[in-house]
Amino acid sequence: MTRWKFYSAPATCGLAVHIALEEAQADYELVRLNFAQAEQQSPAYLALNPKGRVPALVTKQGVLTETAALLVFIAQRFPQARLAPLDDVFAFARMQAFNSFLASTVHVAHAHGRRGKRWADDEQAIAAMKAKMPANMRQCAQMLQDQVAGPYVLGEHYSVADAYLYTVAGWLPGDGVDLAEFPVLADHRHRVGQRPAVLRAETAAAAPAP
Amino acid sequence: MTRWKFYSAPATCGLAVHIALEEAQADYELVRLNFAQAEQQSPAYLALNPKGRVPALVTKQGVLTETAALLVFIAQRFPQARLAPLDDVFAFARMQAFNSFLASTVHVAHAHGRRGKRWADDEQAIAAMKAKMPANMRQCAQMLQDQVAGPYVLGEHYSVADAYLYTVAGWLPGDGVDLAEFPVLADHRHRVGQRPAVLRAETAAAAPAP
Repeated sequence: MTRWKFYSAPATCGLAVHIALEEAQADYELVRLNFAQAEQQSPAYLALNPKGRVPALVTKQGVLTETAALLVFIAQRFPQARLAPLDDVFAFARMQAFNSFLASTVHVAHAHGRRGKRWADDEQAIAAMKAKMPANMRQCAQMLQDQVAGPYVLGEHYSVADAYLYTVAGWLPGDGVDLAEFPVLADHRHRVGQRPAVLRAETAAAAPAP
Repeated sequence: MTRWKFYSAPATCGLAVHIALEEAQADYELVRLNFAQAEQQSPAYLALNPKGRVPALVTKQGVLTETAALLVFIAQRFPQARLAPLDDVFAFARMQAFNSFLASTVHVAHAHGRRGKRWADDEQAIAAMKAKMPANMRQCAQMLQDQVAGPYVLGEHYSVADAYLYTVAGWLPGDGVDLAEFPVLADHRHRVGQRPAVLRAETAAAAPAP
């Protein structure tokens, strides 16, 4: 297998995929984009991923995007890592529903705090979105907590949904949500944060630019 | 297998799942929620699906939500219907990425036209979101068109991604986007719209309330 190239950026949902790559012990090269310099909008990157977002994974067969898709792709390519209930259609659907909720509801709610210009041009409107964001994230935190079977998202077994929840729950304090109010999420974050794969991914993502 | 209960509402992304159920010839009962009467927020429905959204599928094993998750669940439960490339990990990831983009980018862009109050309380902000929505949907249409391998999303074979694209592309004219500008999408919509399963789902969804 040709080595994968994994494009990500610090403090993005790319961390979830990064963790999954580390859990799977995949052979990949990390390419960190500098959002402050808008590298995700450079012609070279847009040629790879016209969406101008991270994460993106370049494989011999083509480029893959979208966190929820990449997480399952890694789990399926590395079944020995047991990162998803691949033999249980219902449990797999539960995991997919959790990931999809993170992508299409929680991540979207979070993005209204900093990237309101995606959805309105007016400065006052962008400020209004930012103002409502903490309340929405608090509601999301409650809904996420209610969905965690415990100790992991699906119960006893760790899966890529845990890497994704860990990543998004890490945004909550910065979004004005106190994790102490959500003990299941706080416990989950503490537990997952101790995994060697998570520490490796976080260290690599945070290292000084080369 | 106990008969599934499928909760949906007209003119929602529930149509994509409805089509998949028809394609799979699944044994299910359709329950149509009346959004005008806020039935999706009724205590009885919230007990089933605390998100207060559609679609939701009640199975013997539990309730499943999220369109992208349900589409794959149906494809996996009815492999003989060949609704997804279940034996090709890369093609499956491509399909998942397409579905995830529909759920977390295109559907979200669309929702800013009518459901801006999810993300801001201010009336002027909600109007600003509505004003930007057509431009965002136009950009989404271009990105979708660029991703369709043709004639179907993944190429020669129809999949649940086509049911989902058909559903969301049906929103474009109402969102101010002329499908004539996007011939690949217009051709796709015409082709998929002739499938008997699609006609059955659309007819059932649009029938007068019992």
